[in-house]
Amino acid sequence: MPINTRVIDNPKSERVRRVADLASRKTRERSGRFLIEGPQSVREAVRWRPDAVQDLYVEVTQALGNDRPVSLTVQRIEDESQDSTIYVHHVTSQVMARISKDSQGIVAVGNLAAMETDPDDLELRGDALIAAFWQVRDPGNAGTVIRAADAAGCAAVILVDDCVDRLNPKTIRSTAGSLFHIPVLTMSTDGFFAFAHDRNVPVWAADVYGTPDRTPEQLPAVLADPKARKGPKAVLFGNEARGLETGELERCNRIVSIPIYGKAESLNLGTSAAVMLMSLAMSSHAGTILAV
Amino acid sequence: MPINTRVIDNPKSERVRRVADLASRKTRERSGRFLIEGPQSVREAVRWRPDAVQDLYVEVTQALGNDRPVSLTVQRIEDESQDSTIYVHHVTSQVMARISKDSQGIVAVGNLAAMETDPDDLELRGDALIAAFWQVRDPGNAGTVIRAADAAGCAAVILVDDCVDRLNPKTIRSTAGSLFHIPVLTMSTDGFFAFAHDRNVPVWAADVYGTPDRTPEQLPAVLADPKARKGPKAVLFGNEARGLETGELERCNRIVSIPIYGKAESLNLGTSAAVMLMSLAMSSHAGTILAV
Repeated sequence: MPINTRVIDNPKSERVRRVADLASRKTRERSGRFLIEGPQSVREAVRWRPDAVQDLYVEVTQALGNDRPVSLTVQRIEDESQDSTIYVHHVTSQVMARISKDSQGIVAVGNLAAMETDPDDLELRGDALIAAFWQVRDPGNAGTVIRAADAAGCAAVILVDDCVDRLNPKTIRSTAGSLFHIPVLTMSTDGFFAFAHDRNVPVWAADVYGTPDRTPEQLPAVLADPKARKGPKAVLFGNEARGLETGELERCNRIVSIPIYGKAESLNLGTSAAVMLMSLAMSSHAGTILAV
Repeated sequence: MPINTRVIDNPKSERVRRVADLASRKTRERSGRFLIEGPQSVREAVRWRPDAVQDLYVEVTQALGNDRPVSLTVQRIEDESQDSTIYVHHVTSQVMARISKDSQGIVAVGNLAAMETDPDDLELRGDALIAAFWQVRDPGNAGTVIRAADAAGCAAVILVDDCVDRLNPKTIRSTAGSLFHIPVLTMSTDGFFAFAHDRNVPVWAADVYGTPDRTPEQLPAVLADPKARKGPKAVLFGNEARGLETGELERCNRIVSIPIYGKAESLNLGTSAAVMLMSLAMSSHAGTILAV
């Protein structure tokens, strides 16, 4: 909506410092704000979750006496934001450099409260797929798996137990906008299993090893079973280094493993999540044509 | 085989400089050598391709008057190398720091000629899957896709046209050892299509857009077709930013697209390759049980 016509040009101003400080989790929690960096993430936020965007900071250059956004891409996002109640601020390149190293000319400040989803508000249609990640610690991994869950048409992502902050700027960047496409919730381990149990959503562990008592089922056999393709499910992936522990595995309804056909030891978390979620989604959507 | 008992302790020596210089492609090509960094890659090289490994450089510390490898992991790789004709050199931490920033205590020097595979020597069994990548430019991406191809049991990886050097140290690290599990060849675009044609291997393009005349087929429909699952095939993936161009697409027998079920715009190259190759492999291996 309103564009502040005065260009912010002092990198040391209080406002600029406050925005830059959103790189820290503590500041995000204290202020109730978070930082969205770069054209792709900002565009998807403005397009899909304008309610969660408060301010846009757009880098401008002086051209023929006018202040112009630094690129057409950035200009288009500014234009698109005009339909909503987002405040637009123009800043110099020095100010933008102080705010973010990864802005490519545009950042947004989001409202943390708007990104909270009440689990009771989640709509789980017939074959809803939920992607859950236990103790994912790397910001880039978290972003990658949220993007894979979005591509697979998941109803939600749940970050379980002690995970990286989903509003870490690097995580947001790695989601390539997917954070603004699907609900991303955080829950404790007990909270997650209670949530799934209360809604009759079976939990499948994605795990290579299983427990001493339970050998994992192989994914192709599961995909070939028409019964397995039906109904909602939550797939739980483990920590990137340690996987899932026996305690968590024992609480899952099924344990499913992605086969390795070559000599590779394993797939990394991002690849495992993409292969598992996309093949479940393809089987579910294309169920009727998978018959030979 | 032989361990040089004198610890190399001069970071400025000619030998140390020559090893460190293998980070540059020019030096690799001129010297016919390449650098393998870190325990995982070195272990897989020693285990699967000892013929391609010339020297092992192992970081040691002084303990009770003896020189000991810095970790048990590194010690085990040194032990394993004893069965082959690999020369082992002990080095100080200063020397190792000069050789590589990513050694974690061990690097190897490989022989470039040993890593060349004559296309005529490739064994293509009945349902052989070949993963081909056109103009992949990022070293990390190249490594990730080689690893995915290995996991999917591909017979070979072919880097087509102007790609990143498969022996770039960062690429090797990203393959997590897979470079030493399957043949990785390089070919021109014409060379690749001639190779596939001569061996009656159909080429499938992995592409979202297709050409003005040809809309891509959707992967689930292709997977559901028992005929499509049979026989050898080469899947060609495009550049990470630009995909495949019309000229290349027109030379392919089929164009296959991975469906996106959510709002994500696309999958990145590494994820696309993993999803496409793993689902083709799972369909091919589990073909008989995919019937409903």
